[in-house]
Amino acid sequence: MVKKMLTAVLLCTVFAQIMAQNSDKKLFTLEDLIPGGGTYRQSSYPENRYYAFWGEKCVELDLGEVKAIDPATGESSTLFTLEQAAKPLQQGELRHLYSAQFPYPGQPLALFKQYGRRALVDWQTGELVWSQPIDTAAESEDFSPKSRNLAFVKDHNLYVTDADGKTRAVSTDGSIDIVYGEAVHRNEFGIEKGTFWSPDGQLLAFYRMDQSMVSTYPQVSIGPFSHDQSRCAQLVPDKYPMAGETSHQVTVGIYDVKADRTHYLQLGDPTDRYFTNIAWAPDGKTLYLIELNRDQNHAQLLAFDAQSGQQTAKLLEQSDDKYVEPLHPIQFLPWDSQKFILQSRQDGFSHIYLYELAKNGRSCKLLKQLTQGEWEVFDVLGFCPSEKSIVFTSNEADQLGCAVWSVSTSGKRKAIGSTSGWHYPTLSADGTALLDNWSSPTVARQIDLASTPSAKTTPLFTASEPWDNFRVPEIKVGTIKAADGTTDLHYRLVLPTDFDATKKYPAIVYVYGGPHAHMVDATRHWGVRGWDIWMAQQGYVMFTIDNRGSEHRGKAFEQATFRRLGEEEMKDQLRGVDFLKSLPYVDADRLGVHGWSFGGFMTTSLMTTYPDVFKVGVAGGPVIDWRFYEVMYGERYMDTPQSNPDGYDSTSCLKKAANLKNRLLIIYGGNDPTCVPQHTLSFIRACIDAGTHPDLFTYPGDGHNMMGTDRVHLHEHISRYFDDFLKK
Amino acid sequence: MVKKMLTAVLLCTVFAQIMAQNSDKKLFTLEDLIPGGGTYRQSSYPENRYYAFWGEKCVELDLGEVKAIDPATGESSTLFTLEQAAKPLQQGELRHLYSAQFPYPGQPLALFKQYGRRALVDWQTGELVWSQPIDTAAESEDFSPKSRNLAFVKDHNLYVTDADGKTRAVSTDGSIDIVYGEAVHRNEFGIEKGTFWSPDGQLLAFYRMDQSMVSTYPQVSIGPFSHDQSRCAQLVPDKYPMAGETSHQVTVGIYDVKADRTHYLQLGDPTDRYFTNIAWAPDGKTLYLIELNRDQNHAQLLAFDAQSGQQTAKLLEQSDDKYVEPLHPIQFLPWDSQKFILQSRQDGFSHIYLYELAKNGRSCKLLKQLTQGEWEVFDVLGFCPSEKSIVFTSNEADQLGCAVWSVSTSGKRKAIGSTSGWHYPTLSADGTALLDNWSSPTVARQIDLASTPSAKTTPLFTASEPWDNFRVPEIKVGTIKAADGTTDLHYRLVLPTDFDATKKYPAIVYVYGGPHAHMVDATRHWGVRGWDIWMAQQGYVMFTIDNRGSEHRGKAFEQATFRRLGEEEMKDQLRGVDFLKSLPYVDADRLGVHGWSFGGFMTTSLMTTYPDVFKVGVAGGPVIDWRFYEVMYGERYMDTPQSNPDGYDSTSCLKKAANLKNRLLIIYGGNDPTCVPQHTLSFIRACIDAGTHPDLFTYPGDGHNMMGTDRVHLHEHISRYFDDFLKK
Repeated sequence: MVKKMLTAVLLCTVFAQIMAQNSDKKLFTLEDLIPGGGTYRQSSYPENRYYAFWGEKCVELDLGEVKAIDPATGESSTLFTLEQAAKPLQQGELRHLYSAQFPYPGQPLALFKQYGRRALVDWQTGELVWSQPIDTAAESEDFSPKSRNLAFVKDHNLYVTDADGKTRAVSTDGSIDIVYGEAVHRNEFGIEKGTFWSPDGQLLAFYRMDQSMVSTYPQVSIGPFSHDQSRCAQLVPDKYPMAGETSHQVTVGIYDVKADRTHYLQLGDPTDRYFTNIAWAPDGKTLYLIELNRDQNHAQLLAFDAQSGQQTAKLLEQSDDKYVEPLHPIQFLPWDSQKFILQSRQDGFSHIYLYELAKNGRSCKLLKQLTQGEWEVFDVLGFCPSEKSIVFTSNEADQLGCAVWSVSTSGKRKAIGSTSGWHYPTLSADGTALLDNWSSPTVARQIDLASTPSAKTTPLFTASEPWDNFRVPEIKVGTIKAADGTTDLHYRLVLPTDFDATKKYPAIVYVYGGPHAHMVDATRHWGVRGWDIWMAQQGYVMFTIDNRGSEHRGKAFEQATFRRLGEEEMKDQLRGVDFLKSLPYVDADRLGVHGWSFGGFMTTSLMTTYPDVFKVGVAGGPVIDWRFYEVMYGERYMDTPQSNPDGYDSTSCLKKAANLKNRLLIIYGGNDPTCVPQHTLSFIRACIDAGTHPDLFTYPGDGHNMMGTDRVHLHEHISRYFDDFLKK
Repeated sequence: MVKKMLTAVLLCTVFAQIMAQNSDKKLFTLEDLIPGGGTYRQSSYPENRYYAFWGEKCVELDLGEVKAIDPATGESSTLFTLEQAAKPLQQGELRHLYSAQFPYPGQPLALFKQYGRRALVDWQTGELVWSQPIDTAAESEDFSPKSRNLAFVKDHNLYVTDADGKTRAVSTDGSIDIVYGEAVHRNEFGIEKGTFWSPDGQLLAFYRMDQSMVSTYPQVSIGPFSHDQSRCAQLVPDKYPMAGETSHQVTVGIYDVKADRTHYLQLGDPTDRYFTNIAWAPDGKTLYLIELNRDQNHAQLLAFDAQSGQQTAKLLEQSDDKYVEPLHPIQFLPWDSQKFILQSRQDGFSHIYLYELAKNGRSCKLLKQLTQGEWEVFDVLGFCPSEKSIVFTSNEADQLGCAVWSVSTSGKRKAIGSTSGWHYPTLSADGTALLDNWSSPTVARQIDLASTPSAKTTPLFTASEPWDNFRVPEIKVGTIKAADGTTDLHYRLVLPTDFDATKKYPAIVYVYGGPHAHMVDATRHWGVRGWDIWMAQQGYVMFTIDNRGSEHRGKAFEQATFRRLGEEEMKDQLRGVDFLKSLPYVDADRLGVHGWSFGGFMTTSLMTTYPDVFKVGVAGGPVIDWRFYEVMYGERYMDTPQSNPDGYDSTSCLKKAANLKNRLLIIYGGNDPTCVPQHTLSFIRACIDAGTHPDLFTYPGDGHNMMGTDRVHLHEHISRYFDDFLKK
């Protein structure tokens, strides 16, 4: 299996022209290529269709009707119309059917969430079966279709509206300092939300985070403000715990809707402890979570009695000399409530392990490692009880891809649907059917309906390639060796539009380089960015390589960067530069580099560590010194400034400001809550003090990334800088 | 007299080569030319000498001795040495004699202010006569040599230390919201301090300002902070009342040192009223001030009983259909305590008026307008009782100069010392002697000692020209007509170093353009800026013109800009551009513009109002929209946004962001408390929204201007931008 994958990768390394160029086709505008551009949707976004599951049945959601899909043929027939569904609702309340939900298998009930209420309509009788009011200021809504209880957050407090529409406050002292029901620990450790309904929807586990002891970052809004306010800029305080500093304290509460009572898990002193991956037992009597120490090198799977809040078991422990990073809650087998699976990287790659609880629930034992190999399980989509299998995505078939597989509890594995390209699947609640929306370097978008047991697929929709009308430059992928001399790294190379091999072109490296991300993959056009295409059209060679430290390549690949973020990554990027320089059509004296966030850190680091390599750099929203980054992400890779001062010093761009020699433009979101403006401003200050001259731009009011029309402006601005200083 | 002046101006308009160029001389570095540069002091700053008065006697202050000056010959002889003065002090307390003061005529007493105390030494006996402790955190110190009481401010509270060294708090509730003893009304209306000793030094008038109702501008410090603090950026709140918004409320208190008692003047509701130009009656029984309404078109000279705080008289009123701007407190004649002088622009130019108080002090009458003509009195230096004259500076002799004159109460006027160039004089307390430190286009620095009665001068020191070692470019001055077709405007033109009339050079306009400032004057090298010289050396023609609205040309000249700041000023600047384009050696396609503060507003306005004129602009610390500027300065010239919405709209650069076409770099101090960052950031936002592309730079931690090495970096950065986009 591993060999198969390697062969696939090797095939990719053979330069292959992906798109034939056609000089009578259109040239792109930046608006065609950048999300937010006025013509982006028609020019660059492959057409889509919207499907959902109603039990095991697949339905297509459309503006005016919901259609039932025949799984054998893919043919559709009207299930109900907008008119039918809207009949019991108020005039104008329902305007389309794209967001209809079908939580009750077998029952002809469609759930609609409108502004102001959630409504359940019987499309056969045309009756409003049930409805529930929604506070217009509600955030982080979490609805239990089972109990029809709704949890939501408003002004940092947690509320529950029950099925009868009665709303109760679970907390009342919420503030910027104490927040309830929101994602905690800055969304690290797989945390995406702050409320967790028990299987019956009557108990609500929730996070409470006290961040009163955390530093407040003074973000500033320049308005415009409403007419009854001063027009003077206003403070927007934001809690931001910086690496090595005092962190927030998290606890977990359980709210019993029927009893209207809250109690907290008896977790003890929460100082410097992370509580993640909350999971309910199938019977709702036990709550599981993973506790991680602040050093992030020791994780424990703990069980708590949901009624008493007392800890009942420490089931598993895991340590690592660098870090462990639990990202997935345990999941119980639907057909055996004593068995659960755990996703772990303990053998060096992310894989699925099957455990069995002791009868008393106080311990567990490993039954089987269900997957293994030098590839990674991405996500468990769910279970197929009828064949007792677990359905998941992985890059087993192609290191650059993501495909759907199932594995039985005996370890028997099979692919479901195509294994080429990159798949965004949705599994039906009963696990028998799979909606598979995918693309590949040559497939703009394909939607298939697959059967989990048979692994057979029925095509539902094929999108045409929107770039077929344009002069798309040639895109190549391949591998080169990392700086360690042995590891293969994937790159993507975009040749200038109307490429002439006898010419010398300037070349730009687009870099990210950080963990939990990759830039080169088997999605449409090898994941090329619209800006790459734009710059290729302006006469640049565009190059991207996923260095060691990036995702989906296993633990050792990722952890090569531990305590020295940027160092190994830069060495790998310089191998990419060597490769670029080896290309006869690349002008080695006109190399540029651009990246955002971690890529902004990489860009600034490259320009100041190897000041002669790149003539021009553009760093966006950069980390400048990991001392200004937050505790959870930062300390995982860097430990604390106290325990790793040399690592922080040697990777700090502040210390290298004097080395800056060539042109470096730094761009940041004026209200970036992730890489706070202090990063960029501290670097500017360090350069001024050192007598060097970076350039600067900011997007006032924007966060870590520019969206909409700002994103188009941003890429105009970046392009202009390369045109000013690299093109000629 | 007027004709004489005009002749002088006309002479200046004849292009004259000021400096012979010499190709075997050195070229400048930027460090030679910019204050803060490592070699600035030796390369660009004419040598200086330090003198002071001891009664009517002039003494020279030196490192190791104080010398008495013979007024007839200018010869010096040792008065006392550092060793003698330091004898009664602690080891190392006194390290030089440059800051010695001699407040007691006839007595051999030198006053030294050291860190920690103020000490009075008898240099003849070698004894410490008296000393007074100084709080190390004391700010805004105001010492009365008469009573030896010291007023100071600490943490916004006012304190007085008496002659016996006892300190009492005058206020205790000082905070960022309520400040005591500090300059108020944002230092407008001539306000430079917040404490005013009565003639006997026993009563202290002081300002109290309540700004709790004023908007807080959230300035942010990025550190570095001390080790016991978080390294997270910190809020630095600053009260900033924006035009048309709620302003602060000022009152005036009087603290009686002997009684340790404070009472406040009975001023009534202080809302939207300005209290300025505080002056004591010679007997200390009456306090005078000028009250101005918020619209700034009506001023009243009021008298208050110092003991009761009650208003005793409204002595004078002045109105104007645009604005009045009282800048100078009344001053009583030392030889007649019923008579005072008032400086006013009521006849269109700033002149001195002599008034007489009624016996009861309840009214006054004008005795005489002491000066008049189409020139301006700058400052009254003091009085010469022996000849009953008032000593002042004016530009009577030369519209570009500043010379010293005296006028008798009968109106007889005479010049004291040279009337050429620009004079920085100091008058002795008895008014008979004048220390005159001056320069002119051809004089680097001259220090003379003059007699007020005889008007004769004795030269004390002549500095050599530090630029004599360098290749100084040719500097010309002249006049052209303003856009009104009649008014003469003064310009300064700097030709490129090693000028070749057959070549075409790029040209840069340096602009300020706002009130209370001028750029072209009769100081050394016509007031040329070091950066002009630098850029001339880089091959640019440098041009500056003082448009209508600038200072020292009278009320009509200044008020031409009323309610439409920037409009007439730009028209005048465009006349300057026409003139530049008429020069055969100027490349009309390569024009640049640069300015700071009001000049940053002018630059941004020019680049967005006349987008085809300048290829490159650099705007520093700009006003972008007068709505973001403060109440006192802003409303004087613009009225309020409520009463002049069209004026605010039509002058707002935000509304013109879409017009930006060519290259515009905007630079701002990261913590600018004057033109707050909101100006620049709002413009950047407006440009992003409009799809235009300014460039940006900031100096984190700096205020409205860059000082020290930052100033050198700034000018490197500005120069680089012109080199990037204008030079070629």
